[in-house]
Amino acid sequence: MAFHITECIRKTKNKQPLTNEEIRELVRGITKEPLIEEYQLAAWLMAVCFQGLTDAETAALTMAMRDSGQTMHWDLDGPVADKHSTGGVGDKTTLILAPIVASGGVYMPKMSGRGLGHTGGTIDKLESIPGFRTALSPDEFLKQVREIRCAVAMQTGDLAPADKKLYALRDVTETVDSIPLICASIMSKKLATGADHILLDVKVGSGAFMKNDADARELARLMLAAAKADGKDCTAVLTDMDRPLGMCIGNALEVREAVGVLNGETDSELGQFCLTLAGELLHQAGIGTAEQCRSMAQEIVETGAAADRFARMIGAQGGDASVVRHPEKLKLSRCERTLTAQQAGWIAGMQSEEIGRASVLLGAGRMTKKDSIDFGAGIRLHVKYGDEVGRGDALLTMYADKESQLDEAEAKLRAAITVAEQKPEERPLIREILRTGADT
Amino acid sequence: MAFHITECIRKTKNKQPLTNEEIRELVRGITKEPLIEEYQLAAWLMAVCFQGLTDAETAALTMAMRDSGQTMHWDLDGPVADKHSTGGVGDKTTLILAPIVASGGVYMPKMSGRGLGHTGGTIDKLESIPGFRTALSPDEFLKQVREIRCAVAMQTGDLAPADKKLYALRDVTETVDSIPLICASIMSKKLATGADHILLDVKVGSGAFMKNDADARELARLMLAAAKADGKDCTAVLTDMDRPLGMCIGNALEVREAVGVLNGETDSELGQFCLTLAGELLHQAGIGTAEQCRSMAQEIVETGAAADRFARMIGAQGGDASVVRHPEKLKLSRCERTLTAQQAGWIAGMQSEEIGRASVLLGAGRMTKKDSIDFGAGIRLHVKYGDEVGRGDALLTMYADKESQLDEAEAKLRAAITVAEQKPEERPLIREILRTGADT
Repeated sequence: MAFHITECIRKTKNKQPLTNEEIRELVRGITKEPLIEEYQLAAWLMAVCFQGLTDAETAALTMAMRDSGQTMHWDLDGPVADKHSTGGVGDKTTLILAPIVASGGVYMPKMSGRGLGHTGGTIDKLESIPGFRTALSPDEFLKQVREIRCAVAMQTGDLAPADKKLYALRDVTETVDSIPLICASIMSKKLATGADHILLDVKVGSGAFMKNDADARELARLMLAAAKADGKDCTAVLTDMDRPLGMCIGNALEVREAVGVLNGETDSELGQFCLTLAGELLHQAGIGTAEQCRSMAQEIVETGAAADRFARMIGAQGGDASVVRHPEKLKLSRCERTLTAQQAGWIAGMQSEEIGRASVLLGAGRMTKKDSIDFGAGIRLHVKYGDEVGRGDALLTMYADKESQLDEAEAKLRAAITVAEQKPEERPLIREILRTGADT
Repeated sequence: MAFHITECIRKTKNKQPLTNEEIRELVRGITKEPLIEEYQLAAWLMAVCFQGLTDAETAALTMAMRDSGQTMHWDLDGPVADKHSTGGVGDKTTLILAPIVASGGVYMPKMSGRGLGHTGGTIDKLESIPGFRTALSPDEFLKQVREIRCAVAMQTGDLAPADKKLYALRDVTETVDSIPLICASIMSKKLATGADHILLDVKVGSGAFMKNDADARELARLMLAAAKADGKDCTAVLTDMDRPLGMCIGNALEVREAVGVLNGETDSELGQFCLTLAGELLHQAGIGTAEQCRSMAQEIVETGAAADRFARMIGAQGGDASVVRHPEKLKLSRCERTLTAQQAGWIAGMQSEEIGRASVLLGAGRMTKKDSIDFGAGIRLHVKYGDEVGRGDALLTMYADKESQLDEAEAKLRAAITVAEQKPEERPLIREILRTGADT
């Protein structure tokens, strides 16, 4: 039967499901001649925002987008894992997870991106380590993965080009916030990278794409279903994003914090979070039970194996591996200012999106792709959600190249942190864990 | 404040009204540099399909589209009227209305279009009169209007170019069926033509854009509000389209039927309908009360004034005016076939859209803009909705150039006409009349 994009738009608009064939043709027409007109794709995307897609359509869309370009296949003698975060503030999890998981016997060939807007990017964080190269050739990448079991490099090649084009269109047509489209966008790339075990960190909260638990759970459910349809093992962790992750925001500052955890500071919320995630990934990869794997992760850190592996990874990628033992070598911007509590009380709110924006004002991130980054800029928090503070206690310290940047960020940060008279209710960082193994 | 189309898309998507300024900028960007990207317009159009527009937004959109090109101003010594139909099958009303209204002292400079798909066009119908020219220069048009008070010509110039472009985009993005967008499309053109009094014939039924009374009433209400906002007087007649209008479908056949009414055959449903509409327009133009005007319309026909004026109009436009006295001179295609009732009963259904499509198969219309028309082809109905028929009674006669066309159309026509055992409930042709004068 002939394919008509108008028929697809009409069907989706009327909440009638598209066939697998129609979805394949639609995705084909995103990157291959005869191209579908962008205005027709845009109309279809907006119809999807209002009417959604069925689980079957979402899985078909994910697969078709995965197949729009290169799909990777690893020829390694052990399980291959990948991890994805939907975008957090202060999220340096990958830096901690990769060496732990690799030390546990699981391959982690991780491809990452740069930061844009209020969320940072793993690639930028790593580049704050002097000499660190994130642009690896496919051969270099594979060689390093074989030797060290982990490598973190800039995404190269032609992975899911249909997603790239569709995302660019969604970005300018206000059609980003559709859960099935977000699922297909994330999972098409993840499935194209060829990992057997995928860990998804789905951020929930006012500053995240998913504003509430129901949406986050729905996204996680769809992503797990798409992974399952592709025969992959997947776990989704729903994480509170109504606070930054950890105590540092900013590139070199986050590497410092990550190195701290790898050097044994695992009692912190970030440390505990990373051990749980590392345990999950090791468990997914069949290394042991969830409990055994978490203990193993703890042990890997305590014995120094994780820090050693991170140092090896840095060295292999041309970076100064001594920063693992001497994090003080990492850049810190010259101007600093500490904000203190103007009243006593409890930290009842930390708007992570605003804190992320403040870090951009300090120089730690970009508003447009062309902006440059000051690796030494950022924020070090001295308090976290739920902490009690006295009047005058230090809340955070800002770092930037210029005093004027501190002024700009100060107002934003003052507004982002709420000190309340009442102790706020406890909110666990991990809200829920969903697994493909279980009935989802 | 800077204009951002993404902001407009986001607002409409979230059902937040756009400001007048935003709507003006949006419409400006449809035809003038810097142009808005078509994919962004398409996304906005689809959002409008789901969320609608407020009455104020619809009026602002209509005005901005009206102002996107030339707007006409008449310098005439009497009221100027215009009429628009949302698209019917067998609709020859303009041919009858224009000479009656002109004879009553009201100017009717009417610009029309060609038919496409299952509905015919007034321009095609007039061109079935030998010699008739529908392409008039602005000067010719104005001169004829001054002399005869009526002229029907092809739309020229640059009326509402934003609508033209937006409609072309709607047509390929499945965003045609939005009532506010339909209102803006129709009324931007009508208001640009500069008439003081506008009569709208809003078709309702399975074969019309407006499938039910509620939608038709909503469209009429919006169109009246837009007219009122522009200081124009407007009346909307809601007309049943679950049957063709009158007994003939096809160009020369419809001219014959129109000439019949103008020559005094006003007892038919079509005749009564046209007298009511002509009376409405004369009343709108301030000629008298609604009752006086309807009587005047009747008298204009009975005295032969309407037929004379139609003949003058034909003559002025280069056509053979003798067809008004001798309609048998009009073309009739050589092959004919009469369909008879296969059972006794009542005519309980006449799917006008299907009858329109059958007339296209016979050669009376076009499926694409490039198709040519057989002016003598079409359908003459012998029965109408609600009539009782005996087995073997003639239902209709088809006319075409080739027997094969009769074969094709026959099946469609058989399926389009329902003969039921029960007398169907009466359905008036005019369902409702709404006026700007009244509180709408």
